[in-house]
Amino acid sequence: MRIATVGGSALAYVLLNSGHELVEDLDSAECIILQADHDELPTLVEEVAPHVSKGDIVIHTSLTHGPQVLDPVEVRGAVVASAAQLRPDTWGVEALDEVGLTVAQVLISDSGGNVIELSGDTRGPLIARVAYSNITWYLAAWAEMDVVQEIRGVDVPLLPEVLPGEIREAYRYIEDIGQQQAYSDVVRLLTERGKLPDFRWTGMEWQE
Amino acid sequence: MRIATVGGSALAYVLLNSGHELVEDLDSAECIILQADHDELPTLVEEVAPHVSKGDIVIHTSLTHGPQVLDPVEVRGAVVASAAQLRPDTWGVEALDEVGLTVAQVLISDSGGNVIELSGDTRGPLIARVAYSNITWYLAAWAEMDVVQEIRGVDVPLLPEVLPGEIREAYRYIEDIGQQQAYSDVVRLLTERGKLPDFRWTGMEWQE
Repeated sequence: MRIATVGGSALAYVLLNSGHELVEDLDSAECIILQADHDELPTLVEEVAPHVSKGDIVIHTSLTHGPQVLDPVEVRGAVVASAAQLRPDTWGVEALDEVGLTVAQVLISDSGGNVIELSGDTRGPLIARVAYSNITWYLAAWAEMDVVQEIRGVDVPLLPEVLPGEIREAYRYIEDIGQQQAYSDVVRLLTERGKLPDFRWTGMEWQE
Repeated sequence: MRIATVGGSALAYVLLNSGHELVEDLDSAECIILQADHDELPTLVEEVAPHVSKGDIVIHTSLTHGPQVLDPVEVRGAVVASAAQLRPDTWGVEALDEVGLTVAQVLISDSGGNVIELSGDTRGPLIARVAYSNITWYLAAWAEMDVVQEIRGVDVPLLPEVLPGEIREAYRYIEDIGQQQAYSDVVRLLTERGKLPDFRWTGMEWQE
């Protein structure tokens, strides 16, 4: 299958493992994977819609959005689903109907990934946990890079970009006050190191 | 070679990769690997000393101690070195003489590990970086376990123990005030989650 990716997601690269072809042209793609930060995804879907034909598969990778954000391509006859990376080898899949769910499950399973089926109810509790896991992992990875740099005496490659909108959205799903504090502490540590340039975190509030 | 480990270190298990034999009896061991928290290592060395004969190899794995802490076994004729894990595949080696340095380097290299030679001067700047990398990694690993638990609905295995004395000692090596704050923030997050049971962290001070 011809796959195009906008925003370059881990999912797209996993799918290529099972023999699909990566193409640059959205019009010729049979499957489009969209990755964008929380606030940018709705606009991206609108921009991509004119390139989508009936029967095309469109998948977005945001955990803070459900599959509903893909409505503008779904009304054009696309099969849609969301598939967010929960762990390095595991994706949480949610769809508007059985067809979308099955297509996303088969695509990911055939490529060796694990699939968890999500719903509006089960996605919420995962959002904050996955976001906290991601930001603590960033913190740890940057700290390890600092060790490598001291040992080897050379600059090391940059890590994948942090998506500030996803991190801000996920905070809304944390109910426990202690966990809110832990989350904001880690976000502050990242901000102070210049890893979250687009937002300032002041106490419990995000300021753009 | 017959290797015994007291405290069970990653280094001992790496050495077994290259065909050495693990024994329980310290008296019959030709190489003893000691792993203990900062405050406990000197006592452990004293306890092990009667079991050490001339020509035995004794290696400790603490980064907050140099090889001098092994003096009580060195005066009994042992070849001594320290070999602390800096990264998953890399050890920082320090010895009192060329023989100790060479023996430790060869043992680790033959088992596929990388070796960095340390000295009193180069060990200091690494201590705080490695400790910060370790504690942020713990934080990230526990956060990921929380995701796994939510996905799978089962309890997950415990991670390796945090060594509170090592974490407290490493703090003394941090000179930058912002980094001191970041370090104490992460330590506090671990303490609040019950991962550092032996110490309380109050502001910038450790209290036992």
